[in-house]
Amino acid sequence: MKVIIGGVRKDVRTLWLEGSVLRMINQPLLPYRFEIFESKDYRKTAGAIRTMVVRGAPAIGAAGAFGMAQAAVEFKGNSMDDFRKHMKEAERILSSTRPTAYDLFHGIKTVMDGMADAKDVGQAKKYALSAANQYADWSANNCRLIGEFGEKLIKDGCGILTHCNAGALACVDYGTALAPIRLAHQNGKKIHVFVDETRPRLQGANLTAWEMVMEGISHSLIADNASGHFMRTGDVDIVIVGADRVAANGDIANKIGTYEKAVLAKENGIPFYVAAPSSTIDFACHSGDKIPIEERPQDEVLYVSGLSDSKKTERVRIAPAETTARNPAFDYTPAKYITGIITEKGLFRPKDVKSMEKSMEK
Amino acid sequence: MKVIIGGVRKDVRTLWLEGSVLRMINQPLLPYRFEIFESKDYRKTAGAIRTMVVRGAPAIGAAGAFGMAQAAVEFKGNSMDDFRKHMKEAERILSSTRPTAYDLFHGIKTVMDGMADAKDVGQAKKYALSAANQYADWSANNCRLIGEFGEKLIKDGCGILTHCNAGALACVDYGTALAPIRLAHQNGKKIHVFVDETRPRLQGANLTAWEMVMEGISHSLIADNASGHFMRTGDVDIVIVGADRVAANGDIANKIGTYEKAVLAKENGIPFYVAAPSSTIDFACHSGDKIPIEERPQDEVLYVSGLSDSKKTERVRIAPAETTARNPAFDYTPAKYITGIITEKGLFRPKDVKSMEKSMEK
Repeated sequence: MKVIIGGVRKDVRTLWLEGSVLRMINQPLLPYRFEIFESKDYRKTAGAIRTMVVRGAPAIGAAGAFGMAQAAVEFKGNSMDDFRKHMKEAERILSSTRPTAYDLFHGIKTVMDGMADAKDVGQAKKYALSAANQYADWSANNCRLIGEFGEKLIKDGCGILTHCNAGALACVDYGTALAPIRLAHQNGKKIHVFVDETRPRLQGANLTAWEMVMEGISHSLIADNASGHFMRTGDVDIVIVGADRVAANGDIANKIGTYEKAVLAKENGIPFYVAAPSSTIDFACHSGDKIPIEERPQDEVLYVSGLSDSKKTERVRIAPAETTARNPAFDYTPAKYITGIITEKGLFRPKDVKSMEKSMEK
Repeated sequence: MKVIIGGVRKDVRTLWLEGSVLRMINQPLLPYRFEIFESKDYRKTAGAIRTMVVRGAPAIGAAGAFGMAQAAVEFKGNSMDDFRKHMKEAERILSSTRPTAYDLFHGIKTVMDGMADAKDVGQAKKYALSAANQYADWSANNCRLIGEFGEKLIKDGCGILTHCNAGALACVDYGTALAPIRLAHQNGKKIHVFVDETRPRLQGANLTAWEMVMEGISHSLIADNASGHFMRTGDVDIVIVGADRVAANGDIANKIGTYEKAVLAKENGIPFYVAAPSSTIDFACHSGDKIPIEERPQDEVLYVSGLSDSKKTERVRIAPAETTARNPAFDYTPAKYITGIITEKGLFRPKDVKSMEKSMEK
């Protein structure tokens, strides 16, 4: 992705491994400060996933894979039995960081599978590193392909609504929902993006708006409450969001509020697209209501963080001291509200998701 | 309304006139500080309406009426011609403070009409004061009646969603949407209120939550994005909101996001009620799309105000410096999404709003 820091243009990924050190853009500091977070061991990587230094389904998948590679490299000794026990423990710890993101399990499994044929610990470590790096490259390439398929859906001169951040920052690179938007802009289409601020964690205001600024894409930040209004006024022609998990029947789980936007898009006759790599599909999960919904700490609702007038990152409380909050982090959107799912293999109708299972087993 | 300050219970109104001094609860300071704002002249009152020291359609109506009474009292001289010119100017200034709230014009007109038969300036001043105070009493009583009619719709043990603050703070007393909720609680019904935080200005988090705390009503603050989720999970059994204006066809204009909640309620088979005094009905306005929608400053979206950890009211910026925002303050909700309109005259179907015109001309 393109990043302009102090007037200097750089091309970076959201996270990458250098030796066994995982480096990642420290996302809670955005959009106010651009910093690279370093993790030298898998437990620190697990902590970074949990505290959302890295977030977004595909990025979490890569973080999971990199974390497993780190766990392999960290192991001391030559016993394969002990090594397997150690890796099982790493798998358990990394898997438990975020319950909703299916990509996480996929990233972890890829590294586990990659080491399956290793004859000794040394070889296993080599295989693990290689599998994790390949996973990240494959994940970035999927997003690039999603961009190419999705770009065709964006007409010149159109208004696009997006929710949360399904951008390069949520992936290894390019983004899912933002990949088609990036490409449409690069191809010279005149577009305007309505960015839902996405309370409670404000990923739209903090991250999507930042990516739009970095790419020079025309955009307006809006309160989540205003998206229905702009759908009805005709300002929004198309909605594109990401997904944390896609069920076999085409239902999807994504950031809280996605369900609301989907219902409103349908009500206003506006196409609603979900951009997600096929690795996000959980064929074992038959419908969206089976996807576990993470309820996060209530302080995310009771407080808002941002930059104070004195340029310090500060959090402010927005409710009375006695008030408590509920904070479901995700919701699921039934397939009937979804026009199409943009994957690296092309555009699918939700009801055709099931048919992809065979081709993916190859 | 019940207010508990430093452990001491008080019963206060949102605004009231003492002599020609208008006193009102300073709402931008809530929920962190309870203070009474004083206005000694109508221009300061107009400023207080514009800066939302006082907000909410019925409260703005009363503020408009009180402002007109202040304008009358302020006048120096005996010429009725000069007095009328002065009052026309006050009418112009007070009317231009907020464009969407129909009650404002109603409050102002009530005082103008109240002075119509005055034979001299002294009598006009007396009539103006009397008309403004009567208007406030009438307005408070309407809300009390809305509470009684609406309370019947709330079942014991039910979950209620409300948006923005259509509470006592938005009125002279009792509230519109919150009047039935207050009364249900006082009558011993076990209820739980889901309070939409209501970005961008957070009237739900700041004001509705505060009223719930003052009354001791069980409630949860939620991100606006989560209301659809809680409608689908079955936690919300009924939605009650206020209205800034009701059109003759039963469409309503209310705080941005109301339209979204209404569409989602219908989609989930949940009754959606609008609580509004009949003075909110604009019979000259045939449908909701004719109601002017105020677009407020973009900083309301780009910044969030709250209480810092060091207990100071502070605002923080939530978006990159280069990002701009759109900020429609209201939206309109078509009648087809509205189950009923709760007025001081009883419960009406939206399509029966038109039939009320005759009875109101009496």
